[in-house]
Formats: sequence, structure tokens, C-alpha cells
Amino acid sequence: MVYVTRKAHFSSSHRLYNPAWANEKNQKVFGKCNNPNGHGHNYDIEVTVAGDPPHETGMVIDLKKLADILEEEIVERVDHKHLNEDVDFLKGIIPTAENMAIAFWKILNPKITEGKLHSIKLYESYNNFVEYRGE
Amino acid sequence: MVYVTRKAHFSSSHRLYNPAWANEKNQKVFGKCNNPNGHGHNYDIEVTVAGDPPHETGMVIDLKKLADILEEEIVERVDHKHLNEDVDFLKGIIPTAENMAIAFWKILNPKITEGKLHSIKLYESYNNFVEYRGE
Amino acid sequence: MVYVTRKAHFSSSHRLYNPAWANEKNQKVFGKCNNPNGHGHNYDIEVTVAGDPPHETGMVIDLKKLADILEEEIVERVDHKHLNEDVDFLKGIIPTAENMAIAFWKILNPKITEGKLHSIKLYESYNNFVEYRGE
Amino acid sequence: MVYVTRKAHFSSSHRLYNPAWANEKNQKVFGKCNNPNGHGHNYDIEVTVAGDPPHETGMVIDLKKLADILEEEIVERVDHKHLNEDVDFLKGIIPTAENMAIAFWKILNPKITEGKLHSIKLYESYNNFVEYRGE
Amino acid sequence: MVYVTRKAHFSSSHRLYNPAWANEKNQKVFGKCNNPNGHGHNYDIEVTVAGDPPHETGMVIDLKKLADILEEEIVERVDHKHLNEDVDFLKGIIPTAENMAIAFWKILNPKITEGKLHSIKLYESYNNFVEYRGE
Amino acid sequence: MVYVTRKAHFSSSHRLYNPAWANEKNQKVFGKCNNPNGHGHNYDIEVTVAGDPPHETGMVIDLKKLADILEEEIVERVDHKHLNEDVDFLKGIIPTAENMAIAFWKILNPKITEGKLHSIKLYESYNNFVEYRGE
Repeated sequence: MVYVTRKAHFSSSHRLYNPAWANEKNQKVFGKCNNPNGHGHNYDIEVTVAGDPPHETGMVIDLKKLADILEEEIVERVDHKHLNEDVDFLKGIIPTAENMAIAFWKILNPKITEGKLHSIKLYESYNNFVEYRGE
Repeated sequence: MVYVTRKAHFSSSHRLYNPAWANEKNQKVFGKCNNPNGHGHNYDIEVTVAGDPPHETGMVIDLKKLADILEEEIVERVDHKHLNEDVDFLKGIIPTAENMAIAFWKILNPKITEGKLHSIKLYESYNNFVEYRGE
Repeated sequence: MVYVTRKAHFSSSHRLYNPAWANEKNQKVFGKCNNPNGHGHNYDIEVTVAGDPPHETGMVIDLKKLADILEEEIVERVDHKHLNEDVDFLKGIIPTAENMAIAFWKILNPKITEGKLHSIKLYESYNNFVEYRGE
Repeated sequence: MVYVTRKAHFSSSHRLYNPAWANEKNQKVFGKCNNPNGHGHNYDIEVTVAGDPPHETGMVIDLKKLADILEEEIVERVDHKHLNEDVDFLKGIIPTAENMAIAFWKILNPKITEGKLHSIKLYESYNNFVEYRGE
Repeated sequence: MVYVTRKAHFSSSHRLYNPAWANEKNQKVFGKCNNPNGHGHNYDIEVTVAGDPPHETGMVIDLKKLADILEEEIVERVDHKHLNEDVDFLKGIIPTAENMAIAFWKILNPKITEGKLHSIKLYESYNNFVEYRGE
Repeated sequence: MVYVTRKAHFSSSHRLYNPAWANEKNQKVFGKCNNPNGHGHNYDIEVTVAGDPPHETGMVIDLKKLADILEEEIVERVDHKHLNEDVDFLKGIIPTAENMAIAFWKILNPKITEGKLHSIKLYESYNNFVEYRGE
């Protein structure tokens, strides 16, 4: 079994807040991430697929195909967008990196037909990142 | 003469548009950067100060002081903010990286009292960055 | 379950030697890391916490709080210090990256009260790093 | 148990093709990686060894020794080489990153006598990398 | 005046040799870069354009347009290619990073119609890079 | 004219203090960098040589030779050393990055016989670096 990873990039804005809460509680819990006009990040996403590379190709998954899936299913829908306002599959979800990784998994998992989706890693900044393995 | 650089980081959202133009022209000129709800970036800023390191200290400028100036004058005013909406010194300016670098120079230049401000470098993403040298 | 990581940085000096050994054996085992006056590194530490992000916050752990714990418990005690001489919790320990990661785990583990400490990763240089998972 | 990683670098050229296939099928499956005159990469290899650091040394494995093994067994045999033409241990193998990681494991595993080889990670480019854990 | 930089990436193979020289001299001068079957690199290219950002756009040059020029004129012609064999504009040129930067300048300079081409920076590896400013 | 850069790395410890000053003043001026037992860094050094690449080689300077000069003249004398205690050519100099860059220039300048030494860039950490151009 080999783990194959493809990385992609997108730049988005978001705001962390829970609409069920008063402003004061939102401010207390989410701090500067709660700024009403939002803020933004350059996100890196790493998608890891696990499988046995077949003898004829030596490739767990065609990386070009994986890159295309990632581009069409994720990047085109979130890049240069406001994650709270512009992204259908994030509606009603607080767009923390944790929730985004889980949402990306749900979209990508049925699309991965060679090998098996193993992990979604999402870097929100150089110092903060999350990983979700479907567990 | 030695050039001393200090780097800092901030995460902001912005939208590129010219209020004097129709939506269609804004869309044509600024493309996906014109998305009405904005998008965002992790910005890196590098401030370079030039000078002769005095014999007694060997330092062109106290880097701790430079870091503090950068933090107070720039990072605290733009980090986790919407550059078009929340930042007083960017009001009326299209927040391209070019314009931001020039605006940062205007703020920082009078604060640098050891050595001489030489350059402001601003990275909007891994692939895009600008430099302004006050020329 | 989502794995959330926060990175921090510190710059320290250290010397690798075993006081129970003769100089010659220390030199043979630790090579240039045994230099009597020590040497130093810019260390990166990555702390990973695992947990389920609650529906109300979407966050496994408040990253600001995790950053503060990391700063107070680790960075303030080792940054710009000599690891053999200045750090109480490393007394009597050979400050290899392996031993440092284990020591950091012991300090951080009881402080992590949201989620569960999963991993301490410590980069001594671009080419050398270690990971400890409490196993 | 601590996981210790050493990174190394090499620059090689290769061509992806299956000699059992017609040119057309090779082109279809491997795309631009099938270019007859080949292309190349700066590869990063990370070798991870797991073990308990003994009390006397605090080191799972002497990193200098691990670096030397990596240099002699891998880097010297692939650096500035054409992977299809010049590397004996890759003869008859399609030099995808997956197959290279497996081939490196087979060579390195018997050489690791302190600790236990845990993982080979191979970066073909900034956006593409694979990991093999001997499973 | 602001300096705006766009970065792009390509992966190529090459061989350094002077056809006017005997094998022995080529080997002596170019060392392992003279390997007959070639070797390869992941190259980064940074193109810097200098100009005054007009008031209406705040952009020295439309970065999307610069990225497209870079993609069409350079990346598509060298990516996943053998620089000695497959690239028309490098025929008869020893493909050192120096010569490549000069060749890229000659191609890009007439295509930059907003602002003025200021610099081509070419990274052959993490440790080796060159810059050409048309001087 | 092309600017060719070679990067190298070393890990050292140092302490910033001026022996002509009282402890209190040293502490005030150099802050945590004045810690009596020292601290350390992973330094990156970039040496840039400018020249015209001759037609027969396409190389401003043989990078292998430049790398060897850098290794012998600088890295071997500072790597895994205490800069205040162990390095002859830094005796009597406060080892700030500024002073180190100037000292490295003095050593390297007479050794560069192909092309002309243009710049020494020294990174003390990810956020702090200096450049000296012999001016």
C-alpha cells in the first residue's frame, strides 16, 4: 500500500460565528475570527489516496485525474469566494478548518474510484492546519 | 551599508473594484478578484532598513523595535480585517498588493529613525508578490 | 475525529554529551554536536490535538488557547536559552530532539483539556525532525 | 517510541512508459510524463526510523549514520542520473514515485540496524508526493 | 515605481556539455551535470515587471495576463521536456540556468506591454539560482 | 551580466553583548539575545556572484567550486560552533547577522576569482535576515 498526495491551493474569505449566539458570545468564542466583515487566507489542501500501484502503471491513481477532481470539485467552488456566502456545500456550517476538511471529504470520497481516500489535510496558515481521515 | 529585513504576517480579505466603473467593467478588469463578497489571503510583509551597523551594537536597527513598529503600525490594523471596509488608511484605495505596499511605506517611513527604510515587499500568495522602494 | 495542529518556533543552543562518559567517547558518539561550547538551532514545534469538533463551534480546540499554552509552557521556557543550562525541565536529560519531544509531551499533555494530545513533532533543522505520540 | 526523520535531496530525469504497450496507449496513460526524451525533478526523500531512544544517548539512531546510509545507498545512485537508464535497482520498473519509494524501502530496510524503518516519503514536486510504510 | 513578480514552475531534464569539446573535458568542466543520459530539476521561474500602478486599477500589470504569457511562452514549451532535445529556442545553447534566464528574457521582453520587464529569476534547485536583468 | 547564487546552511550558537558595557546596559540593548549561556540558530547563507557567462560553459562560476569555497571557508569554521568562542575570524566582533555578513564578505571576496562577489545574504531565522553588498 502506497499513500499518494496531491496538493492544491485556494484563496478565500470567511467569518467564524454561530448564528444561534449573541454577538458578545460570538466575539468571546471566535475572537478576531469573528470580525463582521470577515478576513481571509491562502489555503493549501492535501488529498491523500491509498492503494496498491498496479504493475502496468506503477500509479495508485492517475495524479492528473486526482488534480482535475480536486480542481473541479473543490478549488473552483471555493477559490476567490467568501466561504460563508458563496459556497453552497458550506451553507449552515461554521467554516472552521475542521468543518471544511470534513465537508471536502464528503465531496471527494465518492469521486475517488482508484485507490481509497485516506486523508484530507487543510492548511489555513503556516502555523495552523487540520487533518481528517474519515474516522 | 547593510540591509536588514524583518518579516511579518497577516490574514485579510479584500475585493478589487473601482467604484467609478460599472460592474461589467470591474468584472472584466479584475476577474475573480472582483467577487462581490470578497476573498482573502495570508499576506507576508518584509520591511528592509538600510544603514551602517554602529560598532557598539553591530545592529543597523534593533530588530525587536522594528518588529514592534511593524506589529503596531501595520499588522494590528490589517490582520483579520476586510481591507476595503475596516482599514482607515486604505479608504478610497483599491487594495491591490501594489497600492498596499505604497500605503505601508507611507506609514512606516516616518517611524524608521535608525537607518533608512529601503523596501517594502508584500507577498499576496506563494506565486504573486510586489516590492516598493519609495521611488 | 479531526487532528488540529499548531506550530511554534524557538531558537536555542545545546550540547549533546553524556556526563557518565569520557570526553573521547562523547566525541565519538555525538561528533560535532559534542562541541564543548555548544551550537544552536531554530526549532519548529508542531503540537497536534485530536477530537470531534462540537457543532456549536466547529473547533476541536480553541487554537488561540492552544497557541497560548504552547507559548507559556514551552516557548517562553526554551526560546533564546541554552537547553542544557537554562531549562529546569531538561536538567539531567541529554537534549536530543527525541528527548525534547518526550519532555514537551509530559508538560503539554496535562494542559490539553479540549480534545486529546496526539503528537509532538519537533524540527531541529530542515533535514532532521522527530515525532512522539505518547506511545 | 519516537519517529526520527532524515531528509535528503537528488535531481534526476525519468520517463514513464510501459514497454509492453503501444506508444498511443503510453501517451494516453502517462500523458506528458511519457515524453520520449524524458523530463526531470528535484526529489526530496524523507526516511523515518522508529524506536526507543536509549538513556545513554537519547538518540533512536545516529542521524549522521542514517544520513550516510541514505547518501551512499540512495542519493549517490540516483542523483544526476536518468532513472530509467542509469540506475541498476530500477531496471524493469516504471519509475513512478510509488515504485521508487518501494524500491528505496527494499534497499534501506536491511541497512537500518538501530530502530526500525517506519516510512519512506518521496516528494516529486511541491504538489505531488507519496509515502510507503512497508505494508 | 512598483516591482510586481509572478512565479511559475516546470519540470525538465537537461545535460550540460559543449559539443566542441572532447568527452573528457566536458566531464571535467561539467562534472555530474554532464551525465550522458541527463538529469532533471523542478525549476521555479520568477518574472518581475516594474511600473507605476495606474490610479484606475492599482495594478502595474494584470497578473492574470502575466501568468498567461508566462504559461504560454515559457512553461508550455519547457515543462516535462528535455531542454537540449525538445526546446527550439534553446537549440545550440548549453542549458545552464544562466543561459536559460537570458533566453527566457529574450522571449518575454517583447511580450510585456504593460510596465517594463525588470528581472528573470530562475531557481534550479533549493540551493542554486540565477537572476538576469537584461543588463 | 547574470547573478548566480549558492545557498548553504550552518547551525551555531552565539551571544550578543558588548564587553565594554555593564550587564544592565547589555541586557537593555540586546534583550533576550544577551542570555549569558547563549542561544542558537540554523543560519542560511546565500552568496551571489555576478558576471557574464562565457560562451563555452554558460556558467558565471562553477557552482561546484563556489559550493566548495563556501563550505571550506565559512561552513566548516562556523557550523556546530559557538560564534563568540570558537571562531577565530569573529573574535572581538559582536556576532550580529550584520557583522557576520560583513566578516563573511571579507573572507569570500578574495576567493571569488570567476565573476565578482555581489552580495552576502544571511538568514538568522525565518523572519530576520540581512544583506551586505560590499558597499
